[in-house]
Amino acid sequence: MKVGIVGAAGYSGEVLVKLLLAHPRVTLAAVTSRTHAGKPLAAVIPALRGADRGLRFVDSDPVALSAGDIDLFFLALPHGAAAVYAKALVAAGKRVIDLSADFRIADLATYQKYYGEHHAPELLKVARFVLPELAGPAWKTEAKLVAAPGCYPTSILLPLIPLLKAGVITREHIVANACSGVSGAGKKAEEMYLYVERAESMKAYGLAKHRHLAEIEEQLTLQSGAKTIIQFNPHLAPMRRGIATTITVPAAPGASIDSLYAAWRSSYEGRPFVQLLASGETPDTAHVVGTNRLDMSAIHDVRTGNFVITSAEDNLVKGASGQAVQIMNLWCGFEETAGLI
Amino acid sequence: MKVGIVGAAGYSGEVLVKLLLAHPRVTLAAVTSRTHAGKPLAAVIPALRGADRGLRFVDSDPVALSAGDIDLFFLALPHGAAAVYAKALVAAGKRVIDLSADFRIADLATYQKYYGEHHAPELLKVARFVLPELAGPAWKTEAKLVAAPGCYPTSILLPLIPLLKAGVITREHIVANACSGVSGAGKKAEEMYLYVERAESMKAYGLAKHRHLAEIEEQLTLQSGAKTIIQFNPHLAPMRRGIATTITVPAAPGASIDSLYAAWRSSYEGRPFVQLLASGETPDTAHVVGTNRLDMSAIHDVRTGNFVITSAEDNLVKGASGQAVQIMNLWCGFEETAGLI
Amino acid sequence: MKVGIVGAAGYSGEVLVKLLLAHPRVTLAAVTSRTHAGKPLAAVIPALRGADRGLRFVDSDPVALSAGDIDLFFLALPHGAAAVYAKALVAAGKRVIDLSADFRIADLATYQKYYGEHHAPELLKVARFVLPELAGPAWKTEAKLVAAPGCYPTSILLPLIPLLKAGVITREHIVANACSGVSGAGKKAEEMYLYVERAESMKAYGLAKHRHLAEIEEQLTLQSGAKTIIQFNPHLAPMRRGIATTITVPAAPGASIDSLYAAWRSSYEGRPFVQLLASGETPDTAHVVGTNRLDMSAIHDVRTGNFVITSAEDNLVKGASGQAVQIMNLWCGFEETAGLI
Amino acid sequence: MKVGIVGAAGYSGEVLVKLLLAHPRVTLAAVTSRTHAGKPLAAVIPALRGADRGLRFVDSDPVALSAGDIDLFFLALPHGAAAVYAKALVAAGKRVIDLSADFRIADLATYQKYYGEHHAPELLKVARFVLPELAGPAWKTEAKLVAAPGCYPTSILLPLIPLLKAGVITREHIVANACSGVSGAGKKAEEMYLYVERAESMKAYGLAKHRHLAEIEEQLTLQSGAKTIIQFNPHLAPMRRGIATTITVPAAPGASIDSLYAAWRSSYEGRPFVQLLASGETPDTAHVVGTNRLDMSAIHDVRTGNFVITSAEDNLVKGASGQAVQIMNLWCGFEETAGLI
Repeated sequence: MKVGIVGAAGYSGEVLVKLLLAHPRVTLAAVTSRTHAGKPLAAVIPALRGADRGLRFVDSDPVALSAGDIDLFFLALPHGAAAVYAKALVAAGKRVIDLSADFRIADLATYQKYYGEHHAPELLKVARFVLPELAGPAWKTEAKLVAAPGCYPTSILLPLIPLLKAGVITREHIVANACSGVSGAGKKAEEMYLYVERAESMKAYGLAKHRHLAEIEEQLTLQSGAKTIIQFNPHLAPMRRGIATTITVPAAPGASIDSLYAAWRSSYEGRPFVQLLASGETPDTAHVVGTNRLDMSAIHDVRTGNFVITSAEDNLVKGASGQAVQIMNLWCGFEETAGLI
Repeated sequence: MKVGIVGAAGYSGEVLVKLLLAHPRVTLAAVTSRTHAGKPLAAVIPALRGADRGLRFVDSDPVALSAGDIDLFFLALPHGAAAVYAKALVAAGKRVIDLSADFRIADLATYQKYYGEHHAPELLKVARFVLPELAGPAWKTEAKLVAAPGCYPTSILLPLIPLLKAGVITREHIVANACSGVSGAGKKAEEMYLYVERAESMKAYGLAKHRHLAEIEEQLTLQSGAKTIIQFNPHLAPMRRGIATTITVPAAPGASIDSLYAAWRSSYEGRPFVQLLASGETPDTAHVVGTNRLDMSAIHDVRTGNFVITSAEDNLVKGASGQAVQIMNLWCGFEETAGLI
Repeated sequence: MKVGIVGAAGYSGEVLVKLLLAHPRVTLAAVTSRTHAGKPLAAVIPALRGADRGLRFVDSDPVALSAGDIDLFFLALPHGAAAVYAKALVAAGKRVIDLSADFRIADLATYQKYYGEHHAPELLKVARFVLPELAGPAWKTEAKLVAAPGCYPTSILLPLIPLLKAGVITREHIVANACSGVSGAGKKAEEMYLYVERAESMKAYGLAKHRHLAEIEEQLTLQSGAKTIIQFNPHLAPMRRGIATTITVPAAPGASIDSLYAAWRSSYEGRPFVQLLASGETPDTAHVVGTNRLDMSAIHDVRTGNFVITSAEDNLVKGASGQAVQIMNLWCGFEETAGLI
Repeated sequence: MKVGIVGAAGYSGEVLVKLLLAHPRVTLAAVTSRTHAGKPLAAVIPALRGADRGLRFVDSDPVALSAGDIDLFFLALPHGAAAVYAKALVAAGKRVIDLSADFRIADLATYQKYYGEHHAPELLKVARFVLPELAGPAWKTEAKLVAAPGCYPTSILLPLIPLLKAGVITREHIVANACSGVSGAGKKAEEMYLYVERAESMKAYGLAKHRHLAEIEEQLTLQSGAKTIIQFNPHLAPMRRGIATTITVPAAPGASIDSLYAAWRSSYEGRPFVQLLASGETPDTAHVVGTNRLDMSAIHDVRTGNFVITSAEDNLVKGASGQAVQIMNLWCGFEETAGLI
């Protein structure tokens, strides 16, 4: 099967190229980039020297891509741009997995509030938001266009959704603090992201208005069946990759650490990419970077009545490109772990 | 005035030596260390090469120290050991500023629960916990022994106490997430603190049982006049120094971001070492490391009804040695900022 | 084919486990460790959670390992210990690839000078030092025991040997400065390797006496046919993995940058794991970490008459475990790149 | 005495502001910046919150500055721009200490080759290049305009000049490898200097053509009395500040490690900012960052006949702003260490 990547110059695009070049079931047949068209992949991604199989970036013309023989496209573009490509490719009958925010939010007004104009609102009804461990089987046959979840949302939704569904936690006073590596901001030549500014520096940012909030709250609400809002506090940590998230939430009356873990196990037992750590052990981003895993654990603080839930993932893998490959694997009937660790 | 440091081999001891060597009003007359007795300071603290004024570590015998002509001692020892020295020195009429936990907790049972046996419980009644910006003036004449606050507690108590007193926040559902640089763990040759383990790694630890919780909750309770418990989630961040703390707390009915800042201003206006940032701006550890400052700010999230408060400090300066020097300055009638930036 | 690893608790052992678990042609059948016997791999190497295929560490008894059905063993042990295992396993007819220094040095006296007593000197004559790109084909049939080269030596020998052989450089005044990530020191809980000591710190160490000098000079001498000594200046850099080496060497009379590159191309053209960068471009450890590649380039400084040669590799992959797997691939007739990128 | 800084938005400008604000003998009366004119210092340099003494950036008009009552100006501007200000200020009788390259190179043709057009060539004859420990006393009365040395040059000239003068080393085959923290590149919002690109990355750059070569070789030649060229290999290391330099140079016939240290001692004994470490001990950037010190040491490798010399400094302090303050101290008759550690 042939796959293509539209827009691969950023950090998650680079990870996606590496994963697909090494994937045992698909051939990476095209990688597009307006700026880099004509250049060998390794000229732009030096980590691929001697390993880019002679591939060169091609121009990213939606019409030409639609007419070709590639079966499935990954869109690794900024929001806004992704919708334009999705429109052409879906119309041409291609499968599309979008890594941008364009189809993650079902509600158009919410999208517009956080991201501005939507360039293909008519596709919202055919798009599916797929968090593989929680999405059920129907999307595999129904979907034409899949939105891969965002990095912060993945680290919050995987722990919380089974607990909300099982009634183990309350819906009030959920506080999610997350610390992300600097690659989460993308490859932007801005002063704020310079080495000298970020090394040895820790800070909160985007309080009460980070765009991922739209996706997090919509999914919590849709999947648990009741309006849910949370306090989401993102932070920038002095590391390249990884997200460590710590969620404080009051236990539901009668809930215990056992009922929490039972809810998790019934959702995730046997799933390779969600690993439950024993209560008291905490996940570490260094243990998941380079893998498609989310590690998580929880404690019950009887003094406060809260559960404190901790999760860790690689923002560029389980939080972006690895999860997109996992979606492809499931969609195309490959082994879920094909090409992933 | 002559001052001495008992136990200066750790990270905060080193910072304390530097601050006191450069202090315009005191002479650092003795630095003790059992392991290093006889060595020049610069042999153990290479950053002081050519700048240790010929000082050598001396043996740390409480009797000899008590008999000497040094007026004031800083104890930079592990908890437990500090109490032993405090006993001898206070008995000899010396002023003592203790950087350990031994005299931070007024309630003996609480101390014992978190730290084990106390070696000088009779001193608890004469000791004063002094967070300089909040302690009032009485301690300066009453105290014989001052406990300097811990690093995490400083970053939480300075933001919260004026707000609890002013009734701007509720006492329920306070969640404090804090990210500390690795020096916070001390100079311990353990696998967990190796460069390769901690670089590019972010993780929570000590959930629901970190020892600083005792100090934080006792102070919140004593200073605000009502029993207060919080969720305190400490994290290890891949940096050497600094603590960034993010506190989520429901606003009291009717409270606004203006009333929050008003409460802060009435406590901190004109105080050099607490700086208020505009709402929407967030403090950054990189901007406070090397200074005795705590920067802080807050936003009001009308969606959730919470205030989100952020603070940043240098764990070794405002969170330890700088604050101890600030205490000395106030106690001895020096300018508050003498020898500090 | 079944393979085993003896001693896998260190940093290169961990990388070796990951490479062999994912290798398409072999089954990792045993991983030994005295300290960890009985524990699941993932309990010691958390990066393998959910991906250790149920393997547990077994006790590392040479007799039992010799009697089993494993065909090939990797020794990831400290020098000294490796010789003991090699003796038993070679006697039992097993293939052995040793990652320690025990069989890298053909001359016993040199070994003893740098490393002390040798525990299996009789094996030195059957051992082969194999730098895969330069070793020729004979070892594949002759060897019973292969010594995989050290990390610093790999970064120096691959650039220099073809140039010495081709007479493009002089043999005098060779200066090799190398900067290694901290994992090069192994997983040692010593103060020097703590995060706080090494972050933001750069320093030379081991000048004129680093043990790798023995291996570097013996190989330069043996492979170029004339006694060669060099100035080798190792440094510790504030990063986890990677070695960047810069070699200054006078050009031979009449030699040009073209003759240098021609010598390299005749040795390395078509070899996947040595990549030549254009003169003027310099390799970057960040581009090779995680791969089995050595990137290299050179410039000719006509002012000084020197070539300045730069190379970069991952000390744990091309400098250790990846190279060992590459050796296995060639020895066993697999594709050279099997299981490697 | 009143001093001013022209151009303080970069990393060394920020360090200079901090040093002068805390200096016991001078008043920082003006800090200019075109971009930031009107803003409080702390708005641009958040590390100065609460400590900028109410100073605001002023516009940097050479005419207005010349007419004012400030006695001495530091120029912390890019090369090219500095010459323009120097011209006006020197003409107005102000003392000027220039941190740029504009007056470091006595030979105009050399300047033009490395830097392009010179905007005040007539000032070259009145300018003095002052490396304080080596410059002798005459400049203090003669100079109108002092060029403070560059960061790499300081780390190479201080070790080498006394040795060349004493005839302890040869003039041939000098190889200087230097590793600099990223702040050495200045505050440039370019992709190459992003956190994600530089963290965990080590690489050589600017081989055989780095601009500091002009300054290094001219000084070695002028101060030792014979044409001297060197191989200078700069590297970028994953840290914010600091330069570690390792110099390999053949010992002169008959020279020993004792004669080397004797030459150093006769130049540097009693000088506070050059510290000699015992042979075998190597300097560490972490021990000098934040100080105005250069630490250095050497070994004699009898196998190769070389000395290997290592030095470490803070590129922004001894390599830039601290050295400029040291120059001011000496020029104005203050204690050499005033305001410096």
